[in-house]
Amino acid sequence: MHSPEFLQEKVIAAITALHLDRQPPELYAPIAYSMSIGGKRMRPMLVLMACELVGGNIEDALSAAVGIEVFHNFTLVHDDIMDNAPIRRGQVTVYKKWDTNIAILSGDTMFALAYEQMAKTPQEILPQILEVFTTTARQVCEGQQCDMNFESREDTTLEEYLMMIRLKTAVLLACSLKIGALTGGADAATAAALYTFGEKLGIAFQIRDDLLDTFGDEALFGKKTGGDILANKKTYLYLAALTYGSPQACKELKEIYRGDSMLPEEKIARVKTLFTAAGVESLCETVSADYYKQAMDAIEQLNFSEERLLPLRNFATHLLGRKY
Amino acid sequence: MHSPEFLQEKVIAAITALHLDRQPPELYAPIAYSMSIGGKRMRPMLVLMACELVGGNIEDALSAAVGIEVFHNFTLVHDDIMDNAPIRRGQVTVYKKWDTNIAILSGDTMFALAYEQMAKTPQEILPQILEVFTTTARQVCEGQQCDMNFESREDTTLEEYLMMIRLKTAVLLACSLKIGALTGGADAATAAALYTFGEKLGIAFQIRDDLLDTFGDEALFGKKTGGDILANKKTYLYLAALTYGSPQACKELKEIYRGDSMLPEEKIARVKTLFTAAGVESLCETVSADYYKQAMDAIEQLNFSEERLLPLRNFATHLLGRKY
Repeated sequence: MHSPEFLQEKVIAAITALHLDRQPPELYAPIAYSMSIGGKRMRPMLVLMACELVGGNIEDALSAAVGIEVFHNFTLVHDDIMDNAPIRRGQVTVYKKWDTNIAILSGDTMFALAYEQMAKTPQEILPQILEVFTTTARQVCEGQQCDMNFESREDTTLEEYLMMIRLKTAVLLACSLKIGALTGGADAATAAALYTFGEKLGIAFQIRDDLLDTFGDEALFGKKTGGDILANKKTYLYLAALTYGSPQACKELKEIYRGDSMLPEEKIARVKTLFTAAGVESLCETVSADYYKQAMDAIEQLNFSEERLLPLRNFATHLLGRKY
Repeated sequence: MHSPEFLQEKVIAAITALHLDRQPPELYAPIAYSMSIGGKRMRPMLVLMACELVGGNIEDALSAAVGIEVFHNFTLVHDDIMDNAPIRRGQVTVYKKWDTNIAILSGDTMFALAYEQMAKTPQEILPQILEVFTTTARQVCEGQQCDMNFESREDTTLEEYLMMIRLKTAVLLACSLKIGALTGGADAATAAALYTFGEKLGIAFQIRDDLLDTFGDEALFGKKTGGDILANKKTYLYLAALTYGSPQACKELKEIYRGDSMLPEEKIARVKTLFTAAGVESLCETVSADYYKQAMDAIEQLNFSEERLLPLRNFATHLLGRKY
């Protein structure tokens, strides 16, 4: 078993080895830029960790790990166009730095590059790998569409929101683990359990991320809180407040989200009060902890020693920012 | 060997069997619309024809054929955004009928659906199929980028233009034939020869298509001529006129393409006169005929009877609208 630092270096070296300084530069420079911005390389790390957990050789999983990271970055390039997002990870987004057409086409090329990497998987498991990857790619698109639909809908339920974050965020973590397990030679049941681990953990993470965006400690969270409220984002907190708040609180909340007249600090403070009154904070903690527990249950039923499970446990703790 | 009509029906039935009435409808309705608009289904037909030529069973090639058609339609959905094209095949384009975000995301989903189909190829040849398909997908993106680059460049050469149409148009025809041949059990040399046939034929077709857009018989060509001239498109004709025309003619041509003051009919007539004076018409015929001959040479060196080659010959004649 290798350290997380070693695995991350492996991933970074493999991404560098893609040699994205290709022709025409108008197409490949944005791809190189997108891949260089970085992030935590969480998904390829999960591929390699799952591969090692089941006793596989990480060299067999490295192409798939890179493929998943390229795919993830592709979705960010296109999502940033759709969301009009000028900044991502502190850097100017591709469509802002170049233009929309270049971001569309560079993104498309990244999707092809992702498959180029996936296809390097050993032939005997290639059909299985492609099946889970392609299904996941489709689901991520479906999740993004649901997210866009929700922005113009007034009647989104908490269940629909959970389904959306499952598709948009959780299934790609799940897919990373399953692909890592399959390249490591895992049987179907083990691969499925690791998929469930990633899926439940992803949902737990997203709910907690929604919570921290509003109620987080700014020093720990690493960015200013209240951003989702100012953007009128229909997060888990907002939908939970509409579900469990008093009729009067719901009415006020909807009015605040429709209007544009309040001062930012005043708006954040008032919405937080309404959220708290509806019991949203503790609900988020409870629901997130429940998904976290489901994630842990999924891997604990497998016959691995505590020592082998430790990297995934540490990853989960680190991702959620706490132990449950 | 089956008739073209039979093969086309097979393709249409397989596209219908995709069952694109999925959730969320905001994502899949544009996909169903894009796939229903039709066109001649040339690429999947080539897959099946190549499969039959080499003695294969078309059932083995049908998924790949559909995958290539889905991919082709995906590129049209995204190209229409980039080219601001409101109409395609007489119908409103996806981004105009819905919006840009939906066209981006539906297109992305189509790319995944294309791979879903490709992955159904028999396992023993799957890596080869993926290799040619993914390389081609990347090249098509590179070709589209070169095409966009040329619009803002003044110094594009005829060689660069040929390289661009090879990437943007010809390699997907070539890929269709090669994939059909591989699924039919062809050896590498036969698959390569069929690739060359498609590649050269695609270039011949594109040059002739440029020619017909300006000098075609409107009744035969099926649409008004002069569209490329009015759009100031830097076609093979335009670049050839700049290469072989007199310095004075080149100067005038560049001025006409920069300006917006001429009446449409007047502009078309004047540009046609300049093209003709530079010998562009006969050059296009010669170059197109040369590529057509290279295409034919590629399949004639194979050990197939004239009878077996007939469907491809008929396809080529039909595509070019004439025999050479």
